[in-house]
Formats: sequence, C-alpha cells, structure tokens
Amino acid sequence: MMKERKILLSESDIPDKWYNIVADMPNKPLPPLHPVTREPIGPEALGGLFPEELVRQEVTMDRWVDIPDEVRNIYSIWRPTPMYRAYGLEKALDTPAKIYYKYEGVSPSGSHKPNTAVPQAYYNKQAGVKRITTETGAGQWGSALSFACQHFDIECEVYMVRLSYDHKPYRKIMMNTWGAKVFPSPSEATEVGRKILAENPNTTGSLGIAISEAIERATSTPNTKYALGSVLNHVKLHQTIIGLEAIKQMEKAGDMPDIVIAPFGGGSNFAGLAFPFLRLNMVEGRNIRCIASEPTSCPKLTKGVFRYDFGDTVGMTPLLPMYTLGHNFVPAPIHAGGLRYHGAGVIVSQLLRDQLIEATSHDNLEVFEAGITFARAEGIIPAPEATHGIATAIREAQKCKEEGTSKTILFNLCGHGNFDMKAYEDYFAGKIVKHELTDEDIQKSLSQLDTPIIPDR
Amino acid sequence: MMKERKILLSESDIPDKWYNIVADMPNKPLPPLHPVTREPIGPEALGGLFPEELVRQEVTMDRWVDIPDEVRNIYSIWRPTPMYRAYGLEKALDTPAKIYYKYEGVSPSGSHKPNTAVPQAYYNKQAGVKRITTETGAGQWGSALSFACQHFDIECEVYMVRLSYDHKPYRKIMMNTWGAKVFPSPSEATEVGRKILAENPNTTGSLGIAISEAIERATSTPNTKYALGSVLNHVKLHQTIIGLEAIKQMEKAGDMPDIVIAPFGGGSNFAGLAFPFLRLNMVEGRNIRCIASEPTSCPKLTKGVFRYDFGDTVGMTPLLPMYTLGHNFVPAPIHAGGLRYHGAGVIVSQLLRDQLIEATSHDNLEVFEAGITFARAEGIIPAPEATHGIATAIREAQKCKEEGTSKTILFNLCGHGNFDMKAYEDYFAGKIVKHELTDEDIQKSLSQLDTPIIPDR
Ligand SMILES: Cc1ncc(COP(=O)(O)O)c(C=O)c1O
Ligand SMILES: Cc1ncc(COP(=O)(O)O)c(C=O)c1O
Repeated sequence: MMKERKILLSESDIPDKWYNIVADMPNKPLPPLHPVTREPIGPEALGGLFPEELVRQEVTMDRWVDIPDEVRNIYSIWRPTPMYRAYGLEKALDTPAKIYYKYEGVSPSGSHKPNTAVPQAYYNKQAGVKRITTETGAGQWGSALSFACQHFDIECEVYMVRLSYDHKPYRKIMMNTWGAKVFPSPSEATEVGRKILAENPNTTGSLGIAISEAIERATSTPNTKYALGSVLNHVKLHQTIIGLEAIKQMEKAGDMPDIVIAPFGGGSNFAGLAFPFLRLNMVEGRNIRCIASEPTSCPKLTKGVFRYDFGDTVGMTPLLPMYTLGHNFVPAPIHAGGLRYHGAGVIVSQLLRDQLIEATSHDNLEVFEAGITFARAEGIIPAPEATHGIATAIREAQKCKEEGTSKTILFNLCGHGNFDMKAYEDYFAGKIVKHELTDEDIQKSLSQLDTPIIPDR
Repeated sequence: MMKERKILLSESDIPDKWYNIVADMPNKPLPPLHPVTREPIGPEALGGLFPEELVRQEVTMDRWVDIPDEVRNIYSIWRPTPMYRAYGLEKALDTPAKIYYKYEGVSPSGSHKPNTAVPQAYYNKQAGVKRITTETGAGQWGSALSFACQHFDIECEVYMVRLSYDHKPYRKIMMNTWGAKVFPSPSEATEVGRKILAENPNTTGSLGIAISEAIERATSTPNTKYALGSVLNHVKLHQTIIGLEAIKQMEKAGDMPDIVIAPFGGGSNFAGLAFPFLRLNMVEGRNIRCIASEPTSCPKLTKGVFRYDFGDTVGMTPLLPMYTLGHNFVPAPIHAGGLRYHGAGVIVSQLLRDQLIEATSHDNLEVFEAGITFARAEGIIPAPEATHGIATAIREAQKCKEEGTSKTILFNLCGHGNFDMKAYEDYFAGKIVKHELTDEDIQKSLSQLDTPIIPDR
C-alpha cells in the first residue's frame, strides 16, 4: 500500500466565507491616526483609493464574510490548493515530527497573491471601476493583479520599480501576457514620476516612488482605483481561504497541527494560514502555536517596536499601530523581496503584542540551505520568501528529534521559485551572505521615529 | 451551483500499469537496421547504453507493463495530474465544442518529461548504475532527469548545448538545485568535446554534439548509462500514464472525447495521451480522432516521407523506419525547441502510415496567438511547445462553431511557460515571424538521403 502524499479537496470544498479574526480578538486593533492631525480616523479616509465594499471589509466586525460565487469560480482555476505530507523532508531530516505543507504555488502567477487579487478585482468591477493601479517590486503582486483584472475586463496599470523592471523582465512579460500595462517607475505617466525623472533621469526607483505613482493615477484619473497586495485587513481576510481549506485537509488526514508556520512580509500569507487555526485556539481552547518567519535582515517582529508608524516610506499614509523597524528602515537587498517591508499589518501586530502568536527569524544562508534541502527532498523549488517558512519547520522538526517528541508541523509553501532561479544561482556561486543587523542599526532607525508611542497596558 | 472546472483523481487512481500499444497494432513496426550493414538488428544493440529492463521494454509485445511501487510513489508528488474543462476558452471562442485539457505542467520540472525520467532512473538504480548521462537543448529533459536521479541517489551528468547554456541559465540552475552536473557542450569532459573545442573554441554547440558527448561518457565510464527523453518505445510506454489517467477522468466527467490532440516533438507526449484512447478505437471499436500538432517549420508528419533514417544528425544510431525530413534537416530556430526534431518515433510513424492517427501543422504566429488567447482565458501560460496543441484545439473548436456541431475535444497541455517568457517577450516585440518551409527546401533535404526506402504495401 502506498502512503498518500497529497491531501486533496474538491471544488465544492472551496470555502464560501472568509474568516475575520477581529471578531474573536480579545483586544481589538487600535484605530489608525491621521498623518498630520494624529487624530483617530475612520474608514471614509480610504474611500478615494478603494471601492466601498473593500473599505467595509477593512473595518468589519462580522466574523464571516461571504465569498461571491464569481470569485469562487475563478478561485477554482487553482483552488483548493493541495496539502502535502512531506514524507521526503521527514526522511531527509530523520525526524519523528510529522510535516505537512499547504502549497500556494499552484496558482497561475505562482504564489498566494491571487487569493486577494481576484476578490479585489471583483469588488472594483461591481463598483464600476474601469482601471486599477498598483505598484510591484519583484513582480509577484503585479502579476497576480494582472491575472485577476484580465478576468473581469478591468485595465491594470502596474508601476514596477525600475531596478526590477530592468533585471526581472520575465515578470513584466507575464503581466503583459495577461493584458496589463507595466511602467518602469519612476515613469513619464505621472507628475511624481516626471518630477523625479527630471531631477535624476537615471534613478533605479523604489517601492515608495512606485506607490506614489500608482496612488497619483488612482486619485487623478476617472473610474480608477488602487490596490494593495498585503498588510491591510481586507487582504488578510481574503487570504484566510488558505487556512480554512487547510483545516478541512488536516481533518481529512485525521490529524491537527501542533505548530503552524508561515513566512512574514506584510503578514497576509501568515494571516491566511494561521488565523483559522487561531480561531480554534480562541473558540475551542486549542493550543496551536502559530509562528511567523522573518529574515534576520528585516526583523520587525523579533526586534522591532510596537508603535504607531507610517505604512509607506514617504509618510503619507495614516499612522498605523504596528511592529515596525521605522518607516525609513532600508533592509538589505536579500532575494526574498516580499519580506523586505519595515512594518507588520495591524491585526498581526496586535496578536503578537498579546502573545497569541510567535515570531522567529532566519539568516539568508540558513534559508537557502533549507530551500535546497526541500527541493531535493520534495521536488518543488521554493520561492526565496517561502524558504523562510521551511527553515522554521526544519528547526522545529530538529527540535522534535532532539527531544524525541513527535509534533505535527504545518507550514505555508506560499510560492514556487521558477522566477527566482537567479537567487539560487547566487547561492551556488557563493554570493549569498548573512545579512545580520546589529542592534545599533535597528536603534538608529527607530530613534528617528517621532510618531506616537503606544503605552503598555 | 458552480460548475466544476477540474476533474481530479486521488493517488490511489494512479495507474499501476503502462499501456504498450504495439500489442494491439495491426501492423507492427519494421525492425531497425544496422547503420553500416543495413541488416535488421535486435535489442542487444542497445544493451551498452540502457539497463536491461529498459531494453526489454523497448521491444516487449506485452500489452501491459507493471509500474513499480517506488515509481508510483514518486509519481505521486505531482500525479494524478489535473484535467480541466476549459470553460474560459470555450467562452472566449464562443464555440459549442466542449474543450478539456490534461495539464502536465504541474510536475516539479514543469512538463511531461518526468513521467519517463523517474522510471528510467529507477531501472538504472535497480541495475546498479551509479551515473546517468544525457543531452539537453532548452533544458526540459535535463531538468526532468536531474529531478529523477536525485530521488534515487544517482549522479546525473547533463550535456547542455552551449548556446542554451549561455542563454538559458535558469534551467541549468534548476538542474544544479536538484544536484546534477551540467556541462556546456562541447565540453572538456569528453574526447569528442575536446576535439571540437580544439578546432573551434567558440562553437555554440548542437544537440548532435551533446548526444555524442553523453554517449561517449556512458560507454567509456564504469557504471554509467545514457538516457533519452523522447522518440524511443520505452519512453512512449511510460508516457501512457497520461492517457490512462485521462480516460478515468473523462469517465468521471461523464464524457468521452471525439478528438484527442497533442503537440509532437519526438512523439512521446502525443503517444502518452493518445495511445490509451487509440486502444479504445482498436479494442472497443470507437472512433476517436487522434491528431498530432507540429510546427510548419518542422513538418515531418505532414510533409516528410516514411523511410528508414538515422535518429541523430551524425548517422551513428540504428536506421529507424520513420517519418522524416532527413537527418540533416535543420529546422528554423523557433522557440518551441522541443518540436525541432527531424523525425518521428517508430510506433507513431507506423500508426500514421496506417492512417490510425492524423497530423496537422501550425505556423509560429498562429501558435503564439493561441497561447495568449489561452493564457488570458484559462490563466495558465503555456510552454511554446504546448501552444501547438492549443492551436489545433482552437481550430477544431472553430470548425464546430461553423458547422454548428458540439464535439468533445481533449488536448495535452504538456508544459507551462514559466521558463519561456523570453518567447512571449519576442512575440510582444513583434519578433515572431512565420517560418514557412517551401516544398523545395524539404525536397532538397530529402534528396540527400541514401537510406533504405520502404515500399508501399
Ligand atoms: C512568494 C511570496 N511569499 C511571501 C510574501 C510575503 O507575503 P505577505 O506580504 O503576505 O506576508 C510575498 C510577498 O510579495 C511573496 O511574493
Ligand atoms: C514542454 C514540451 N512539450 C512538448 C515536447 C515534445 O514532446 P515529445 O518529444 O514527447 O513529442 C517537449 C520536448 O522537449 C517539451 O519540452
């Protein structure tokens, strides 16, 4: 008898509701503050950027939010995603732990990002929006949104940091293939862009500039809105589809995780897998450890402070209560571009503050070693972001071996590495170096903050 | 109620036998001939290159060949592969036809190639082989074999045409990630390679040279064998896993195809999908049309002759009875590198000769248009080879629309295009041109042949 590797669901198992953890949180997130007046602000501040339904989802207290049938229909292109029992990895580690992973790389763009891109495009379509603008760094989010907009016949404009635009042409072509317009940022298409280009025609751009361009277009062009691929509450809400499926799959496997792990950028894929399991902790009194994995070079959860800070580098967004390294913090140029964000989403930050979740970090070399161990044992070559979750899973599995305990570990393999082979090339060429931050570096960045602090309760 | 898009099987549905069509063919393939004496030769001629069991499979008349449990176990990393009902494409084409596709791109290396790489590595392991050598052009086959060898702890040496080695570094790194050694061919590792390099240090190599290098290493190094990724009978045999699963899936969908379509390089992915359906024609008297899709720039099936010819360009292999454009034929440098082979496998050639299958061709522009239509309607970006099957499916679906008939069409989506974005870039840049061959060009190549002709019956 062969042991089954994959735990599969059928399309009728695709959940019909997303889970909103705010309804169950013992301490609700603190309100955002106006960037200038520093007074609490309401959701109406977001109305110019996002369609009404997404603004509503950003602040809803409803425990469950219906997933529209049209969204589930597009989800069914790649969902339910498979869960794997990692027999190969268990053997390679010679661990008594049982390891499972949920594989989000089967989506057309290769990561978890379409889980929110599709509903975002859908609600924009419902609101009569004709064009969505966004920024993208390495291209994961831009390609997910291009794919989603294509399905609803919405124009998609992506401002791609020029450095990536020049160095990662394949992500750009992927977006074109799905019909999106991709601009190297800074671009001639916006005032911000033209101004920066006039001053510095050879700039390689930055995510901050790209955000400004996308927002300028969204606010200055008719029927145009903006979309964001992580951090915000509605993004995390949409990603809970991952964990809701995972619970069904664990039940099907007759198992339940002791430890749930996911890489952490802005927090949406972590939230996506972990929140439905946290619900079991809060509602059923379970004791599942949920661990967020971040790079040692961008350790907002493990070394940052819980404080109000801006979501962007320029300081234009509302002030959000979050774990942060300071909005001016510039992380080392690691390949896991999706994890290079200075802050953490509001909900996840509150959960960490309340010790309902844990966080850990891994250096750059450790994650590549983990990624290669995984690729050889399981076949799939992981995205650099995803290797962080693998590294944490390996660490926990090794602990099981040392302690002689058999825990059940589940992690989120949030993307494949087909577009990241350059990172592996650098690894084999010995070019991957540890990017440890000193505590002084972190203090230096934090000491520049003059945003409101949040007193201990 | 949502319509289900995917027809999924569980791992216990992975077939436990491959299907050998030779057992059911009305006319068995003619024997290979010795390249010099031109006398019929037996399987022993292959013993130096391949392990005994693969040689046995090359000539077996058994209708069914058991799939070892260890092979099925590794298959289960990605098999059973999904079958999709192409609702999006049907809508885009506004056709009454029902279109299904079997998606082989979910394998770790992204195509159907691991279906044979895994059993080939397995039988080599059983025979005590320590190292397998092979050649690769664009890299699909080399990466599939690297993945497979990794699982059986066999060393894998890949000779990669230098032009690809330099231009497609990501496929090379993928192979490294799975532990293979990749040499730019010609290389310093072989006598053939050294000789060619001495004469012409800057040569960009060719598939013919890479084959010679891989074979030299296999025949001159202890415990070393060679592996081939298409054309041969045992390769086609292993690929029938595709069609055997597809029949179960069509039955599950309560449907059966009128037309089965697959791209055609050496013939293994076509064989893989079509042979089990051809069995239904031969055994149950069904009337399923099986169509092979080739590029107009390499039209061996639609414009070649049925004749004895060499499998390689140099003229070292046995003479095989096949449809061919002549072993010196050099196809235009289309992006669908896997379809640039001058001949067709022996079994498929005999089936075409006997009019049990059909063939059609598409020009380079038509296939890219088909590929982009597909990517926008269905999400998945197809490999350039795979777009040929899509183009045939679209053509047949449009015929249905014109005729007002509703046929059921099934095609093999044999690989994704994540490593082929350069091809799409060229398309968007207007650099994809038709590569029509004139009949004179073909005649010129064929007129150089002095190999034995095969008289009409
Ligand atoms: C493959 C991959 N994994 C993880 C992340 C980080 O995810 P999140 O921002 O949801 O924490 C990203 C973000 O771009 C990504 O592309
Ligand atoms: C993606 C893909 N499709 C199709 C083919 C051609 O397949 P076959 O040689 O089995 O006819 C190849 C061969 O390399 C390939 O890589």
